[in-house]
Amino acid sequence: MKALVFDVFGTLVDWRGSIIAEGGAWGKAKGLTADWARFADRWRAGYAPAMAKVRTGELPWTKLDDLHRRILDELLDEFAITGLTGDEKEDWNRVWHRLTPWPDTVAGLTRMKKQFTIAPLSNGNVSLLTNMAKNAGMPWDLILSAELARHYKPDREVYWSAVELLSLQPEEVMMVAAHRSDLDAARGVGLRTGFIHRPNEHGPTRRADSAEPGDYDVVADGALDLALKLGA
Amino acid sequence: MKALVFDVFGTLVDWRGSIIAEGGAWGKAKGLTADWARFADRWRAGYAPAMAKVRTGELPWTKLDDLHRRILDELLDEFAITGLTGDEKEDWNRVWHRLTPWPDTVAGLTRMKKQFTIAPLSNGNVSLLTNMAKNAGMPWDLILSAELARHYKPDREVYWSAVELLSLQPEEVMMVAAHRSDLDAARGVGLRTGFIHRPNEHGPTRRADSAEPGDYDVVADGALDLALKLGA
Repeated sequence: MKALVFDVFGTLVDWRGSIIAEGGAWGKAKGLTADWARFADRWRAGYAPAMAKVRTGELPWTKLDDLHRRILDELLDEFAITGLTGDEKEDWNRVWHRLTPWPDTVAGLTRMKKQFTIAPLSNGNVSLLTNMAKNAGMPWDLILSAELARHYKPDREVYWSAVELLSLQPEEVMMVAAHRSDLDAARGVGLRTGFIHRPNEHGPTRRADSAEPGDYDVVADGALDLALKLGA
Repeated sequence: MKALVFDVFGTLVDWRGSIIAEGGAWGKAKGLTADWARFADRWRAGYAPAMAKVRTGELPWTKLDDLHRRILDELLDEFAITGLTGDEKEDWNRVWHRLTPWPDTVAGLTRMKKQFTIAPLSNGNVSLLTNMAKNAGMPWDLILSAELARHYKPDREVYWSAVELLSLQPEEVMMVAAHRSDLDAARGVGLRTGFIHRPNEHGPTRRADSAEPGDYDVVADGALDLALKLGA
């Protein structure tokens, strides 16, 4: 095995907690109150249907930043938040560039980087992933993204493009994610698979994916645990 | 200005000195003698014609690793070097993944990274640039490459693809190179331009490109000097 490619939202960063925290701070500054947990969940809930429009061809290729913005505009209506300037909306949309890593993420990646090539392989666009890494100190060797394939996961083209750009064979690459659908698709293309448990991705009331040892090549409790299990 | 994208071969790494040094060590181990300076120059001389075949459509898109390999096979004939295994040829071809940076490169990039997003924008393929960075400690935020556009510089598509993947405007990006043709093409697409003098790129007898202050947005004597001139 030569390279590890990682899902990001939920697997390495706490999108829900980050949006709740930033929403709270931002609302306070603006004198707005809202149920920011519900806001975060509704924003994320818009993600799969928006990508499905691209995956089925209803929309042409569209960066995730632009999908996030379409969803945000609908949410601002739904939450009756008015009076924002275009720049304010744009800045709020870029909260996805500023998500906070889980506590083990940077330490785990730093360890794995010594032994493997490490890259995100996310539906986030290249600039989103680059800005997030700079902001959070994620030490990627390179940025891989659905954007480079102009297809969204779990389309097979995304996993193929990563293997091809790394100049490796599929079995030399491990896809790491907290989501079974992502790993099942990667396995279908011949990649190795590493599952990371993130029981709090969706907060206290909604269940996250889980896996038993043996369901995937490695099943770990976080990025640092994954590094240890890979001998890195 | 938000991002700096860099030419690599000659601008940041000493391809000629690296190939001469590795050829000498490798030849000694194998009991081969050759004029390694001439070998390096001939290898590099094959580069523009090989890329021209891709740029004109005579060859379909081909990674630089594979173009280097085609040229190497011809050179081994020309230099009457025989008896190498396939693995040995492959390893020797990957000398381009192990090129040595100029002495100011890593220090300059490290400084510029604090203030800007930094990436290579090279005709080298993504895995070549990734391996080189890991080997030499080049602290890229992301890897950009001609391979992502499936066009070779100076085709305009390469510069466009970098601007698009960075989600920036052309004038927010500076192309940095030791070669006027690269900067002239980048300027044609609206990027800012930074020239770095590398008088020894082609060795003591062949003249390298040079520039006067004012020919480009910045003219510098190395990567560290460029960082200082950009206030980074």
